[in-house]
Amino acid sequence: MPVIVQKYGGTSVADAERIRAVARRVVGAREAGNDVVVVVSAMGRTTDELMVMAREIAALPTPRELDLLLTAGERIAMSLLSIAINDMGVPAASYTGSQAGIITDTRHGRARIIDIRPGRIREALEAGNVVIVAGFQGVSTAYDVTTLGRGGSDTTAVALAAALGAEFCEIYTDVPGVFTADPRIEPEARKLHAVSYEEMLELAASGARVLQLRSVEYARGNGVMLHVRSSFGDEDGTWVREADERMEKAIVSGVAHADNEAKVTVIGVPDRPGVAATIFRALADEGVSVDMIVQNVSHDGRTDVSFTSPKDDLPRIAGVMDRVAEEVGAEGHAADDGIAKVSLVGAGIRSDPGVAAAMFAALAEEGINIEMISTSSIRVSCVIRAEHAERAVRAIHARFNLAGEAGRRVHSPGAESADPGAEAAP
Amino acid sequence: MPVIVQKYGGTSVADAERIRAVARRVVGAREAGNDVVVVVSAMGRTTDELMVMAREIAALPTPRELDLLLTAGERIAMSLLSIAINDMGVPAASYTGSQAGIITDTRHGRARIIDIRPGRIREALEAGNVVIVAGFQGVSTAYDVTTLGRGGSDTTAVALAAALGAEFCEIYTDVPGVFTADPRIEPEARKLHAVSYEEMLELAASGARVLQLRSVEYARGNGVMLHVRSSFGDEDGTWVREADERMEKAIVSGVAHADNEAKVTVIGVPDRPGVAATIFRALADEGVSVDMIVQNVSHDGRTDVSFTSPKDDLPRIAGVMDRVAEEVGAEGHAADDGIAKVSLVGAGIRSDPGVAAAMFAALAEEGINIEMISTSSIRVSCVIRAEHAERAVRAIHARFNLAGEAGRRVHSPGAESADPGAEAAP
Repeated sequence: MPVIVQKYGGTSVADAERIRAVARRVVGAREAGNDVVVVVSAMGRTTDELMVMAREIAALPTPRELDLLLTAGERIAMSLLSIAINDMGVPAASYTGSQAGIITDTRHGRARIIDIRPGRIREALEAGNVVIVAGFQGVSTAYDVTTLGRGGSDTTAVALAAALGAEFCEIYTDVPGVFTADPRIEPEARKLHAVSYEEMLELAASGARVLQLRSVEYARGNGVMLHVRSSFGDEDGTWVREADERMEKAIVSGVAHADNEAKVTVIGVPDRPGVAATIFRALADEGVSVDMIVQNVSHDGRTDVSFTSPKDDLPRIAGVMDRVAEEVGAEGHAADDGIAKVSLVGAGIRSDPGVAAAMFAALAEEGINIEMISTSSIRVSCVIRAEHAERAVRAIHARFNLAGEAGRRVHSPGAESADPGAEAAP
Repeated sequence: MPVIVQKYGGTSVADAERIRAVARRVVGAREAGNDVVVVVSAMGRTTDELMVMAREIAALPTPRELDLLLTAGERIAMSLLSIAINDMGVPAASYTGSQAGIITDTRHGRARIIDIRPGRIREALEAGNVVIVAGFQGVSTAYDVTTLGRGGSDTTAVALAAALGAEFCEIYTDVPGVFTADPRIEPEARKLHAVSYEEMLELAASGARVLQLRSVEYARGNGVMLHVRSSFGDEDGTWVREADERMEKAIVSGVAHADNEAKVTVIGVPDRPGVAATIFRALADEGVSVDMIVQNVSHDGRTDVSFTSPKDDLPRIAGVMDRVAEEVGAEGHAADDGIAKVSLVGAGIRSDPGVAAAMFAALAEEGINIEMISTSSIRVSCVIRAEHAERAVRAIHARFNLAGEAGRRVHSPGAESADPGAEAAP
């Protein structure tokens, strides 16, 4: 039988009624003649609540113990879902990450999957069961329970889909798919029918929260097709897959924004070789992830180096910076958590230099100042004041006509649409 | 270093503040020069809440999945306690039942420990850690997660104490020890300094909830000394250990009562060999535990057979009885859940036939009718109407002068106290 993997997020299993709705969907997929493996997140805000309990006990909870604590959430969700499916007369069995053979490295709180040993899952499928697997968790090479970081259940699902040779991996969530912008900010935002892995990677890295970045990397690396869709309806969602010719024609896929980053500036850095290496080596050693980096033109042999990082990392960054600023002879450092990042993503950006310029113009017309710029071949990101973020998203969305029927074909403003009547997405 | 095992019940770890208090106590035991292994129950009413969630999903949750669900409670408690101890600067590591090598049979919901493989625990102790172990749970020979039934954490603690050769096993709970009666019912009830394993077994079987019956059996079988005490103070509690001479002198240790049982009567049973065997074989096959059994004198070749069982088992019993009553040619069956059981326990009962008579007299003087009687060598139990239970406990407690200084030495009324000035307990 063909294997399909379905992943359900926390809002999809938030209470008994929703768990039963998910169970009905799973039973439907099973009765349609598939072997079904279901990966499930913790119910609702369980993980956050467990984190609050840990922080009530200790400001810095022991990472190994924190992972044991947080994995309770998926354990509860998986067993309840399995109970619901069994209650509908379809045999189901649930497995923790460890039982499912999700082997990770030993980095507690942000472990990476290094192997999948799906022997027990295969046996359970062969015995006729629907298999439920706890997302977000695994067991390390040191036999300790680990977690994969926020959104890690997506990666669990993709990794199992790859290991089991699944037809595709369905990611059920509380939104209908991937949109040209966050519909809560831009009501005109349009659901995309398909995006390439590369575009999805840039969107995820730029603040689109619908998929964990690493899960998209894993899917691309293993050729797993993803279908991101809503658990509250039956419509198709957004496919994430290899780019094809029709996709490539689209210049811009969407606008993403992120407000969970802060800007850190190292002030008055001596402008000599090796300084940047020292700063960013020290951050990497502490496990701080750095997104954008900008170095100003130097004056009088000194310059400023700015970078963006998750706000959550600010306490750790402050510790590193106190040490490193002195080491490299900088004048000081400052953090600014009042920023937002707005990004334009599209496979066609690489071939159209006008896109970045048009984006900057859209912001300028709104009187929004750009503090940092960073680009990849399929993305342009600008750091602006946080309070302008929503206005910026709407301005860029309108400028590139992303809401239009042929939105994805429209292109840096000023150019003619090559084929305005064609379908926007393949 | 000597190993001590401490077990903390749910009320002892009900919130962050109490978890920190437990952590301080554990750290104290560690700093006193012991290797400390801590077994912990789920916080407060977590297990009950998880059970409610399961029943919202399905009337009869799949046993395997239910065990996975319920074990989340101890997982949360153990990791939070470990976080608290680490936060006090003492290294601690927590382990699930499976990780701790608690091997059980495959009876989900009421598994029995069949082996302890404490290799990981020993390694963690040798590495200088306080070790926290989730109570109530294990892993079956089929590699599935199992639970040990209500109060199973006591058994986890005793089994680990036996496997690790611990000096003794401390059972921390929300009461100061084992009393001559439930102090909520009899304010004059007195804490016992020590009871024998046999007395504790009878007390536990008779409704004293301070220790799980099986944990006492395990302790007796392995010679593990128990110390039942309060986690909210520092006073000594009650020791449970081998009977010694001074204990034996005491005739009556205490009065216990239970209101969680129901009486089932099979009516008009043909009075011929094999009928009782058929009835109780069928109940055993369904895993129904039966406590007292009474068969009336027969009239006209027919008799009534009554037994008591946990009220929770009534739905299953009804199913069995529908089938069995027909099979044995009985006229019918009836259940009565309005009963209570009152028991008098004491090592000296076996040598003093007047004890039972004095107990029946105490009930008669209160006008309380006795519906069933059952005795062992150190216990006399009476089934009465539930509404009379508290009055019965007080009447028996007074009759045997259990509140008195020499309470345990006083004996069937009418006899002279041999040594009224001596300490009641060793």
